[in-house]
Amino acid sequence: MGRPRPSSRVQADRRRLVIEHVQPVIDGGRFPIKRTVGETVVVTSDVFADGHDQLAGVLKYRHVPARGRRVGWTEVPLVFLDNDAWTASFEVTEPGEYEYTIEAWIDRFGSWLKELVLKADAGQDVSSELLEGAALIDAAARPTDPATLLEFADILRRDRPQAARVAAARDPALRALMDGRPDRSASTTCEAPLRVVVDPVRARYGAWYEMFPRSCTTDPARGATLRDAEAYLPRIADMGFDVLYLPPVHPIGRTHRKGRNNTPAAAPGDPGSPWAIGAEHGGHTAIDPGLGTVEDFDRFVSVANRLGLEVALDIAIQASPDHPWVREHPEWFRHRPDGSIKYAENPPKKYQDIYPLDFETSETSALWTAWRDVFLFWIAHGVKIFRVDNPHTKPFRFWEWLIADVRRAHPDTVFLSEAFTRPKVMKHLAKAGFSQSYTYFTWRNTAQELREYLVELTATEVREYLRPNFFANTPDILHEYLQTGGRPAFEVRLILAATLSASYGIYSGFELCENVPVRAGSEEYLHSEKYEIRPRDWSRAGRLDELIARVNTIRREQRALQANHTLAFHAADNPAFLWFSKADGASRVFVVVTTDPHRLQDGRVQMPVGQLGIAPGQPYMMEDLLDGARYTWQGEWNYVKLDPAERVAHILVVRDF
Amino acid sequence: MGRPRPSSRVQADRRRLVIEHVQPVIDGGRFPIKRTVGETVVVTSDVFADGHDQLAGVLKYRHVPARGRRVGWTEVPLVFLDNDAWTASFEVTEPGEYEYTIEAWIDRFGSWLKELVLKADAGQDVSSELLEGAALIDAAARPTDPATLLEFADILRRDRPQAARVAAARDPALRALMDGRPDRSASTTCEAPLRVVVDPVRARYGAWYEMFPRSCTTDPARGATLRDAEAYLPRIADMGFDVLYLPPVHPIGRTHRKGRNNTPAAAPGDPGSPWAIGAEHGGHTAIDPGLGTVEDFDRFVSVANRLGLEVALDIAIQASPDHPWVREHPEWFRHRPDGSIKYAENPPKKYQDIYPLDFETSETSALWTAWRDVFLFWIAHGVKIFRVDNPHTKPFRFWEWLIADVRRAHPDTVFLSEAFTRPKVMKHLAKAGFSQSYTYFTWRNTAQELREYLVELTATEVREYLRPNFFANTPDILHEYLQTGGRPAFEVRLILAATLSASYGIYSGFELCENVPVRAGSEEYLHSEKYEIRPRDWSRAGRLDELIARVNTIRREQRALQANHTLAFHAADNPAFLWFSKADGASRVFVVVTTDPHRLQDGRVQMPVGQLGIAPGQPYMMEDLLDGARYTWQGEWNYVKLDPAERVAHILVVRDF
Repeated sequence: MGRPRPSSRVQADRRRLVIEHVQPVIDGGRFPIKRTVGETVVVTSDVFADGHDQLAGVLKYRHVPARGRRVGWTEVPLVFLDNDAWTASFEVTEPGEYEYTIEAWIDRFGSWLKELVLKADAGQDVSSELLEGAALIDAAARPTDPATLLEFADILRRDRPQAARVAAARDPALRALMDGRPDRSASTTCEAPLRVVVDPVRARYGAWYEMFPRSCTTDPARGATLRDAEAYLPRIADMGFDVLYLPPVHPIGRTHRKGRNNTPAAAPGDPGSPWAIGAEHGGHTAIDPGLGTVEDFDRFVSVANRLGLEVALDIAIQASPDHPWVREHPEWFRHRPDGSIKYAENPPKKYQDIYPLDFETSETSALWTAWRDVFLFWIAHGVKIFRVDNPHTKPFRFWEWLIADVRRAHPDTVFLSEAFTRPKVMKHLAKAGFSQSYTYFTWRNTAQELREYLVELTATEVREYLRPNFFANTPDILHEYLQTGGRPAFEVRLILAATLSASYGIYSGFELCENVPVRAGSEEYLHSEKYEIRPRDWSRAGRLDELIARVNTIRREQRALQANHTLAFHAADNPAFLWFSKADGASRVFVVVTTDPHRLQDGRVQMPVGQLGIAPGQPYMMEDLLDGARYTWQGEWNYVKLDPAERVAHILVVRDF
Repeated sequence: MGRPRPSSRVQADRRRLVIEHVQPVIDGGRFPIKRTVGETVVVTSDVFADGHDQLAGVLKYRHVPARGRRVGWTEVPLVFLDNDAWTASFEVTEPGEYEYTIEAWIDRFGSWLKELVLKADAGQDVSSELLEGAALIDAAARPTDPATLLEFADILRRDRPQAARVAAARDPALRALMDGRPDRSASTTCEAPLRVVVDPVRARYGAWYEMFPRSCTTDPARGATLRDAEAYLPRIADMGFDVLYLPPVHPIGRTHRKGRNNTPAAAPGDPGSPWAIGAEHGGHTAIDPGLGTVEDFDRFVSVANRLGLEVALDIAIQASPDHPWVREHPEWFRHRPDGSIKYAENPPKKYQDIYPLDFETSETSALWTAWRDVFLFWIAHGVKIFRVDNPHTKPFRFWEWLIADVRRAHPDTVFLSEAFTRPKVMKHLAKAGFSQSYTYFTWRNTAQELREYLVELTATEVREYLRPNFFANTPDILHEYLQTGGRPAFEVRLILAATLSASYGIYSGFELCENVPVRAGSEEYLHSEKYEIRPRDWSRAGRLDELIARVNTIRREQRALQANHTLAFHAADNPAFLWFSKADGASRVFVVVTTDPHRLQDGRVQMPVGQLGIAPGQPYMMEDLLDGARYTWQGEWNYVKLDPAERVAHILVVRDF
């Protein structure tokens, strides 16, 4: 007998608890989840131990300052849910970053008390157990504790009838004192804290309007200045927009400048594409002289701000052949064997007016900081929102570093990713730090497509890191649905974008129902504003300004529409209908939209009366916030008729029941 | 304009690829996945980069030796699947541990070639591109390379017609050479390798028979010895079992020994429960004198082995009050305030014959190594399979350490977890290292319950770490289904266990259809063998030996039944039917079982004829491996009748079509 080999000793680990499956988490903590200021982080986790002891624990969280020491943790007790799952939550009140973790331990007093009561209730002698309880109290007591605590220990030890001592042990006051003094010496804590990036509210909620300032004129031969454009802002503010988004405002290259309708050669006077950035007047930190000066830009921003509009700027990391950096930093670009710089290509297409940057240059670090400094430059000029052009053609790690670095000093900055690319690439840019993302919304036009896509965005882990911004159109995308659906199609897409997504936007001309493509089968506009000045008649009859203003007002009044995570789809018996609701406290909005802009559609929609506490037979009033019309409904299934000639949607609230 | 603040420099990260969502993975790599020797690990991962470059990469794997240096990686090229997902696989051929990771990079030659071809096909001048290609080849060439490679570069550079040079660039021989010489200088590798624990085949597949050796007698007053029990082994081997599992074989305590039918006091001659371990003759490394000596045990093991039976031993980490360690190591047990040792309790129940170990003792390290050494002791006596009693009442970290430590020297050891506890605790023990787990199978008796449970076990990530062992009964569990269903119930549960799970077992007496509970509503047996010697008449008519032998033969002949991950349920129009299949190469088995042991059930079952390549109108032959009967089926839906008086199941293979 005896040991078969010399026994190797072990430093045993006394931690008995397991904490696993902490939610929310992105890729095991590799990336932070996202919230906006004032939102809540609800954390759940499986917490368990061997055996049958009672457990207790806390959610711990703290703000992580950009500089300086981390402060101590704030603790929130974990509450048991079911099946070994526990939960707790905290509110994020400061922009920047928070971290959170979970610590849990054996609740020795609770475990002891539970067994004591079971035994005492079964009529067993618990004198030994009462002495154990007194010892637990003694061990937990601190010198500064009220005398009460040790008095409980004395009662438990005292030579009195068992019933009285058990009654003292069960005193809720004792339990409260002991719960506040747990033995955490062998507690378990998650291996690494998880992180929350906290963005400003605008990262979650806002109505965007995209405008080319140079078109703020009545003369197609002469582009407007920023000073001219100021006069066009009140109309946009009146429609209730929150963000005014400008395409690049920098000097535009002359070499290989594109002409109207994207022709290869510009005619004299053609203004060129604002995305062909850089000329003799400067690059990404200069203002196109046709628009004015940096001082004019500062003034434009302050005029917009006074009207309640934040200005978002487009950052496109690319250069025209005339960009100063082409001369100053040729090492930041790709070269041919003959030494010339390579223009952009999507073979066999060539884009001679654009030089892409070479992120594989040996000067990577200088390149990264130079672009970071472009963002910092415009932040210094009052810009807090950036729409980033084609981020998916620049390295993910570059964005992860840049956004984190900018946010350290400016945590109120918003970055919108314009990545119309493959799903996992789009998602990874969001994980890497972008506050918002363009989406596939433009190409989701049936009710079924929209439901599936919105479930992915709002009811899977995607919602923890990717915030959609639903643009109904862009200078690059005039969807066939708008080309062929007439004014009702514009109404449908506006209401869908504005109610399905807390952030949404339109590009100028949408409100005029502009719908002519450059050619059949193309999503490009005819006379695209990308290549020419495009004055518009903003007094034209039939424009959507009033509907847009109404919808934006509803969005401001109904908190339910300012977030996406409560989106719920309900049943409708007409497949053309999208029927859904959002809720936030007292604000609960029901929306039914027809996705058919051509024909009258009617049918029944199912109302979750049970959830609302409406009795089965009880009538209730539905008020359409769009026009104030009221409808008396009853029971679950109610009739809806949507004739595109009259209306394409109801945005409803329950008024009386 | 200048920079608004002194620019901070960055050490830029040149890695452009993202590798994420590597599968299979357990808890982000905190725990290894499991395989048995000869199985394959199919790895999938999302791999993508910014931009539009072609990518390439490898799955890297290696065996991790218990001692000594890790050898180099073996690499398998990744193959593109779809939607940025890639895959590769490897076979594990050695027990122990493997690790695997993924490395991927920009495929510069492939990217260059793709663009070259697009441009050349569009009739563009590609002379500059051809020079770039030549430079790529020059950079990749190694001094030892065949001249062929540099000759390709020469051709690309040479002053010849473009078509000929492009043709050379497209030469598959060049592509193959360049694919073998990728530029991996800025490749991306997963942050930490993932692990695979590789167990012996027995961890995946085996038929278990549980037997109390002391009952191998005809005299209920005198327990059998191990020498007596040897004579009972051929019958068990003849039934086709692989594992003979023995309850604890150690000396049984006398203090507070339980009497027959779990009465509080033993009568003279009562043998006591084998789980009340330890007496004056020794503890966990001794043999109960009534059974014999350690030498008798060694002999018993070798007799069993010669019959093709591996011996599994029960390790119960607990002590009777008479266990030597109670005297030698009182610090390993819990004490009352009066200094006495605490027995086991489940208030208000008391188990005075059992002392649990105190894993919170200050002598934790000594306690851990002592128990590890118990396993090593029996390994030295030929035991490779351990059934661990109630592991969920000992710390998870203890098991994680113990199993890993034992496996380092003995990677062919199998640990079966007997944790009838909450789902997450059961699963965590499997993650922590147990090779197999008892399950809730005993309590899943309807077809719907079984389908749901088996989907969880075989079609979710659970299958990567938890291997079920389906016991149809145990000394602790005689389910009501067996108590009331008669012989057909035993047949149903046998066939379900043996075909749904590659590992399954029965406890002695099952083949005699023993079904009398100690009292109504109890799952305990009347005259439980846990507390008394129980001779049985193994020649009794009506026993299930032949059916068991047939089922175990089918399991040995059909590889499909030796694993679980191909389990597929098919539709049946009778809810009492469970209709499923398993496949492994040429072995494809279809099973239909009625879950109703009382009444004839019939209906139609759906055959996946399309998957099998059977034309819609073509008849095919189904052969029942249980009795050789043949049935002609045609099309998808075919009629099945199961009358418990005749048969409860078909185990079918497709013979001709």
